[in-house]
Amino acid sequence: MKIAILGTGNVGHTIGSKLIVLGHQVMMGSRTSKNEKALAFAAEHPNEASAGNFADAAAFGEIIFNCTSGAGSLEALKLAGAQHLKAKILIDLSNPLDFSNGNPPSLSIVNTNSLGEEIQKQFPETNVVKTLNTMWCGLMVNPGLIAGGDHHVFVCGNDNTAKSKVKDLLKSFGWMEKNILDLGDISAARGTEMYLPLWLRIWGATKNGAFNLKLVS
Amino acid sequence: MKIAILGTGNVGHTIGSKLIVLGHQVMMGSRTSKNEKALAFAAEHPNEASAGNFADAAAFGEIIFNCTSGAGSLEALKLAGAQHLKAKILIDLSNPLDFSNGNPPSLSIVNTNSLGEEIQKQFPETNVVKTLNTMWCGLMVNPGLIAGGDHHVFVCGNDNTAKSKVKDLLKSFGWMEKNILDLGDISAARGTEMYLPLWLRIWGATKNGAFNLKLVS
Repeated sequence: MKIAILGTGNVGHTIGSKLIVLGHQVMMGSRTSKNEKALAFAAEHPNEASAGNFADAAAFGEIIFNCTSGAGSLEALKLAGAQHLKAKILIDLSNPLDFSNGNPPSLSIVNTNSLGEEIQKQFPETNVVKTLNTMWCGLMVNPGLIAGGDHHVFVCGNDNTAKSKVKDLLKSFGWMEKNILDLGDISAARGTEMYLPLWLRIWGATKNGAFNLKLVS
Repeated sequence: MKIAILGTGNVGHTIGSKLIVLGHQVMMGSRTSKNEKALAFAAEHPNEASAGNFADAAAFGEIIFNCTSGAGSLEALKLAGAQHLKAKILIDLSNPLDFSNGNPPSLSIVNTNSLGEEIQKQFPETNVVKTLNTMWCGLMVNPGLIAGGDHHVFVCGNDNTAKSKVKDLLKSFGWMEKNILDLGDISAARGTEMYLPLWLRIWGATKNGAFNLKLVS
């Protein structure tokens, strides 16, 4: 499948690399088509990867991963262009972390709204699915790295067909079906984004970011 | 030990009952000294329990559990009286859930503050320890009800001696030492309170409130 990665940071690189291992064609998009990290990624995988600006990548992808930082996501998606995102699945991994007042960060959109919802509102013809934003990127594509892969990932979004396709992608990443919890419509992004402050405190207390939640009952 | 429970709901009843089983003397406090639930609780345990208003209970307790609803906690603590809370441990189990705009609730204090911090600010001579607010009350006092008791509870607060005493109480409730995670000072209450929206979504998706988080790494 042709898949776009918006964002050139650790998350984008990790997701893009995994998608290539899985046989997909990947275009990494950034603000300019000359982003060094995106060009390096494309050079690493000359047959499977390419680089472009946000609009190039969004036009290329049948599915688009938003791996930009939360502070820049809405602007990046505007640059990608609603016409290139229309009727496609946008997998949103971002968190609206606001470091403007230092550490720990607060959330710039919170409580009665969320970044996932805001993206869905601003791009109503796109099927936004929020997932994977509750863990370190190394685990996103390799859940088996800890606890035999037996821990949880959340999914939410308004369109069930889109969520079903995203669940298939998650399974291809190594997630067990029983551990993919569908929280309902995109408003559940409030829950997963508002978990970030706890995530950051747990990381601070344990000094280990390679952890995740296992729901037990 | 003499322990006060502020609040007469399920949480207060559950914590109070467990404390009695463990051999403590418990006074349940509410807005008036004639609260029917508090009087019934006292009548159930004529030798170990009593009922009074918030100030009576706070004066009685060497340790005070805040089991009031988050919306009423600050007012309840004012009625309890700073002089009765001074130099004592206040174990805060509340969550600032705001149902004024319906379901799902939002949080009335959030993001750059938390109810736990606000209580600490308003009662600076009290040692506030936030804990147990991330789960259904049945699990608070009986973690062994699920997954062999192998799941996590968070603790935060500014005073290490107070936290140490609270950890001992948690162990008496059945929590394993390895599963009591100290998140640091009271500002970490932002993390545990902001987890509530995710907790509520998980409950909604699974239809089972008797779940908890196990951190795996």
